[in-house]
Amino acid sequence: MIKVGIIGATGYAGAELVRLITTHPQAEIVAISSVSFEGQKISDVYRSYVNINDMICENADDVVEKAEVIFAALPHGLSQELAKKCYDNDKVFIDLGADFRLKSEEEYKEWYKGEYVHKELHDMAVYGLPEFYRDKIKGAKIIANPGCYTTCSPLALVPALNAGVIDTKGIICDCKSGVTGAGRSLSQGNHYPELNEGFHPYKVACHRHTPEIEQTLTSFADEKVTITFVPHLLPVNRGILATCYAPLKKDITMEELRKIYQDFYKGEYFIRLLDDGQVADIHNVKYSNFCDISLHLDKRANLLVAVAAIDNMVKGAAGQAIQNMNIIFGLDEKTGLEIVPPAF
Amino acid sequence: MIKVGIIGATGYAGAELVRLITTHPQAEIVAISSVSFEGQKISDVYRSYVNINDMICENADDVVEKAEVIFAALPHGLSQELAKKCYDNDKVFIDLGADFRLKSEEEYKEWYKGEYVHKELHDMAVYGLPEFYRDKIKGAKIIANPGCYTTCSPLALVPALNAGVIDTKGIICDCKSGVTGAGRSLSQGNHYPELNEGFHPYKVACHRHTPEIEQTLTSFADEKVTITFVPHLLPVNRGILATCYAPLKKDITMEELRKIYQDFYKGEYFIRLLDDGQVADIHNVKYSNFCDISLHLDKRANLLVAVAAIDNMVKGAAGQAIQNMNIIFGLDEKTGLEIVPPAF
Amino acid sequence: MIKVGIIGATGYAGAELVRLITTHPQAEIVAISSVSFEGQKISDVYRSYVNINDMICENADDVVEKAEVIFAALPHGLSQELAKKCYDNDKVFIDLGADFRLKSEEEYKEWYKGEYVHKELHDMAVYGLPEFYRDKIKGAKIIANPGCYTTCSPLALVPALNAGVIDTKGIICDCKSGVTGAGRSLSQGNHYPELNEGFHPYKVACHRHTPEIEQTLTSFADEKVTITFVPHLLPVNRGILATCYAPLKKDITMEELRKIYQDFYKGEYFIRLLDDGQVADIHNVKYSNFCDISLHLDKRANLLVAVAAIDNMVKGAAGQAIQNMNIIFGLDEKTGLEIVPPAF
Amino acid sequence: MIKVGIIGATGYAGAELVRLITTHPQAEIVAISSVSFEGQKISDVYRSYVNINDMICENADDVVEKAEVIFAALPHGLSQELAKKCYDNDKVFIDLGADFRLKSEEEYKEWYKGEYVHKELHDMAVYGLPEFYRDKIKGAKIIANPGCYTTCSPLALVPALNAGVIDTKGIICDCKSGVTGAGRSLSQGNHYPELNEGFHPYKVACHRHTPEIEQTLTSFADEKVTITFVPHLLPVNRGILATCYAPLKKDITMEELRKIYQDFYKGEYFIRLLDDGQVADIHNVKYSNFCDISLHLDKRANLLVAVAAIDNMVKGAAGQAIQNMNIIFGLDEKTGLEIVPPAF
Repeated sequence: MIKVGIIGATGYAGAELVRLITTHPQAEIVAISSVSFEGQKISDVYRSYVNINDMICENADDVVEKAEVIFAALPHGLSQELAKKCYDNDKVFIDLGADFRLKSEEEYKEWYKGEYVHKELHDMAVYGLPEFYRDKIKGAKIIANPGCYTTCSPLALVPALNAGVIDTKGIICDCKSGVTGAGRSLSQGNHYPELNEGFHPYKVACHRHTPEIEQTLTSFADEKVTITFVPHLLPVNRGILATCYAPLKKDITMEELRKIYQDFYKGEYFIRLLDDGQVADIHNVKYSNFCDISLHLDKRANLLVAVAAIDNMVKGAAGQAIQNMNIIFGLDEKTGLEIVPPAF
Repeated sequence: MIKVGIIGATGYAGAELVRLITTHPQAEIVAISSVSFEGQKISDVYRSYVNINDMICENADDVVEKAEVIFAALPHGLSQELAKKCYDNDKVFIDLGADFRLKSEEEYKEWYKGEYVHKELHDMAVYGLPEFYRDKIKGAKIIANPGCYTTCSPLALVPALNAGVIDTKGIICDCKSGVTGAGRSLSQGNHYPELNEGFHPYKVACHRHTPEIEQTLTSFADEKVTITFVPHLLPVNRGILATCYAPLKKDITMEELRKIYQDFYKGEYFIRLLDDGQVADIHNVKYSNFCDISLHLDKRANLLVAVAAIDNMVKGAAGQAIQNMNIIFGLDEKTGLEIVPPAF
Repeated sequence: MIKVGIIGATGYAGAELVRLITTHPQAEIVAISSVSFEGQKISDVYRSYVNINDMICENADDVVEKAEVIFAALPHGLSQELAKKCYDNDKVFIDLGADFRLKSEEEYKEWYKGEYVHKELHDMAVYGLPEFYRDKIKGAKIIANPGCYTTCSPLALVPALNAGVIDTKGIICDCKSGVTGAGRSLSQGNHYPELNEGFHPYKVACHRHTPEIEQTLTSFADEKVTITFVPHLLPVNRGILATCYAPLKKDITMEELRKIYQDFYKGEYFIRLLDDGQVADIHNVKYSNFCDISLHLDKRANLLVAVAAIDNMVKGAAGQAIQNMNIIFGLDEKTGLEIVPPAF
Repeated sequence: MIKVGIIGATGYAGAELVRLITTHPQAEIVAISSVSFEGQKISDVYRSYVNINDMICENADDVVEKAEVIFAALPHGLSQELAKKCYDNDKVFIDLGADFRLKSEEEYKEWYKGEYVHKELHDMAVYGLPEFYRDKIKGAKIIANPGCYTTCSPLALVPALNAGVIDTKGIICDCKSGVTGAGRSLSQGNHYPELNEGFHPYKVACHRHTPEIEQTLTSFADEKVTITFVPHLLPVNRGILATCYAPLKKDITMEELRKIYQDFYKGEYFIRLLDDGQVADIHNVKYSNFCDISLHLDKRANLLVAVAAIDNMVKGAAGQAIQNMNIIFGLDEKTGLEIVPPAF
């Protein structure tokens, strides 16, 4: 059994890790920590877990000591020292925060107003999107686990970009996220009566996930990709839907397009390429690690519309982190993640 | 008092007309009709109306005879003969369906598979979007009341298009609608457990509202405008949010852009241009005839992002129809529509 | 025009007063106050009100000075001094808080841990449930406006109690409230992801509204009425449904029971007694001042099941407060409150 | 591996069986059937299941032939002949419908207007509520799997009844169910816009689950128990909360009461007796087979308030059916059902 530690276990991503690892057949949680709830049971914070996981939140040091793989689900800026500590102690560190995601320190400074403290760790950190970078993940000691939007949009666009059928400019990612994406912290905007029956964009064309999405897309293109990224807040708990628009470089039929995606995602268990006429729907992936993709062509405007749906807390956070762990530890990638999304 | 008749009163748009006209100080409902519920009380169909409006549904002929203005909320194809009858009897006809919206019979044939029976009526029909075509509406006998998506997207884009600051190609309207937009007819997709906590696009780049939006946009441009229009279904009752993307033809500051919109919508009570930093939200317009617009510039991609929010059943259907009636009958346009959107 | 002041205008009850009085034809808001948002516009707090009401929040003293009727929507304990000040300045004071609701200072001490500072004001305060105490309300200077649960449950039970057909013991009020009832203050329990798709009781058999409901019921009985009151939190914005169970003292037919309710509520515009076979539903009263009541007999258990539905923010707070104002100022009770509940 | 067949696989209970058995480590689905979708893939009906279970719906006969245990999720009246067929072919038959639940044919006739065709099968059928009747279930060939309300309410009340601390008369079960309880069939009442933001009771004191609840309660009492049962429809997908009121026969402390429940449910994995001060919430059990119970005493009215929450589709249907299968086949009762309820 892999000995797992979770730092930041009482945040939403941390709590989802607790849920998923509890039923993982080859991993067990040996320690969890929480700054806000140190000394309290996780099941006092999330009563869903009563009798199932009643572990007491310790501090981060205890977790690093007891575990062989450490998941950290922390606000950005807090992971760098932790990564150092894990690395020095020869532990695998999987960071669900943003600290190791951007290769360019320039961009990190611009978008996060922070600095890279241990540059060598950033150099060795691997961006943990298995469908794209599986080979590098295998031997990694530090994983930068992608964010939710930054998993969903590239999964929709990369095959087309990689095949050279879409432009590298003029791409638009119109994304819609469930509320858990905003985390557990209270805010007026997520107070039930003010969010319920509402819907709005936020951080229009200035969200921090922009450079991260561009970094992934660019790695599959022959020039820098720029996108317009607009996130919206959906009045549902879970799910992200990315509706991605990309100008086509040349005429292409749906059959050709489908072939490109089929080939690219061949053998990928977690990618479900939907049949023509179907549309990706967050309803069909919730609580699971699947990414559903539907493809559409706007012949009138010569545009690709690629739509992807994931559960933001699973494929967009905790599930993908476990997928990375499975790869690193040589397990079947699906282990603990063969979840059937409920039909309702 | 204006004598109002409603044909198709038991559909959602019809029921909303009933709600709004009931409190209109200068109009009264004299007759309503429904094919499905003829002979039954409207309050048996919508129990919200018990004791407030217990009128019995008659047939369409009764309505035409008794009223001086007839609202029709019918599936497309059924309004042409009604319009003829109203016109011959010198009644004002306000059509909430699609039959009179497209000026081009070609496009109607292509998108609706129907024909124009009385071409002279189509020639005289006025597209009832008051903020754009108020002068023509004044003397109209037949109003083609716009659909929900076709109100929201043009309101977001027309000032920029009219000022020549955005391209006529490459415009994308990513729209999200509440469920009432799909009407009262039962379908598996709108069955509560299968829609709740879900979100998906539909009719991607092939929805019938496409040519209608283009027609309105083109009327403010010097060449044919083509758009990509993708609607999505939101798990809320009411509201449409249109996130519209348009390539900028030249550099423009937010101040200049705002000035263009302010000037264009000067004096328009139902348009609320939000301050910088605010975002349009369907929460803030529900049950009202307002359209909230927020403007955003993506400097990195040289793109305008214009976001508009309306209540699809009010400004997107019944409220706008009443606004048209007010104009035709020489009333203050706001009469009966000065509704405060509830804060929660 | 009646000059209205609202103290605590940025809480939910205050904001709802703003919404309703804005369209009241014979009252106008002359001043509003808020401790948390003094100096800011109400429309900065509730963006639904932009361009409609952009008044700036002042302090309570300003409000008392400028208005002739003062509504206070404050946490309990804060209204007594305000009431004194209003009374001394010959203003009408309508308190949406709990300070003046209980006639017995004993009970107030027990349930609210507070004291009656100005006992004479408590003596003259009138409990503002118009359907029961209209005559006393007419000349009142201080109104204790009932809470939401305490309006809904008595409206369901009083006619039967008054007619002597049910017991005064063994009554159970199983109530379910929308989230706005918990107010605007943030809490983990009302954070969207933790409330959505959930449902639970709270303060089981120990909620402060218990003695208030009993006080009203007892005023229509020949002995002290005791109830078991269990509130639940519904994942909807608005509405209270009270399912009230009361042992029948004798056999009674549905016709006899209906007759009792019809006679009791004769001429009451805001009470809608539903037909046999219908059930009260919060869907049908939302945004309005109506109370829908459905009656059911359990012959097997010899029990009355009376179900009432109101909008907790209207008939359960702001709407009823305006109804009281209308009575005091000699207006038609319905003025400003003839709202058609939306059908969806 | 146990060979499982599911008849009525495309209804909600059937679809939930598909979901749960797919991840059951010691059972596999060998055939499914559906009258409405014969010849189609289950994953065409429920797109959540794409690539996971793409089995084609056959007819009932095929299912009976191929499987060793047959689950039937059918409207009442259709299971009797199926049971006969299974019995004659020495298969285990687990009926999620109502045909075998009532021991008294009298009551079945009264509430279901049907007849018992094979009386001997009714005699041998075992009511499948494992926490109460585990021993009988062990050797059963025909299981009458309880309905959702009929699982939840007895789990809340039986320990107190069994201990003789509550009356057998005057018990009230005020229950609230998520919408999946009404099944997949379309109805106006479950059309999204008409249910959303609504809440209402239905079949007040005349629901068919009444005699079934009474039958279970009576089996733990020394006389016939009568209850008043009022179900309500919650605007959520899943979950049932039963708020049960029972007059206390004598004074009892919370400690004594808790002891009774602890002893009764000792070792029961699926029962979670909550700590004092906690309340049962459907949020905390969804997607799982747990039943959360919270206990409350109303000292003023000398009443027990016992609240139980389950997922109506799992412990209230498919999960419990699998629990029964596990018992019959000698597996650990938890097999395939150790699901962690998601925290959000």
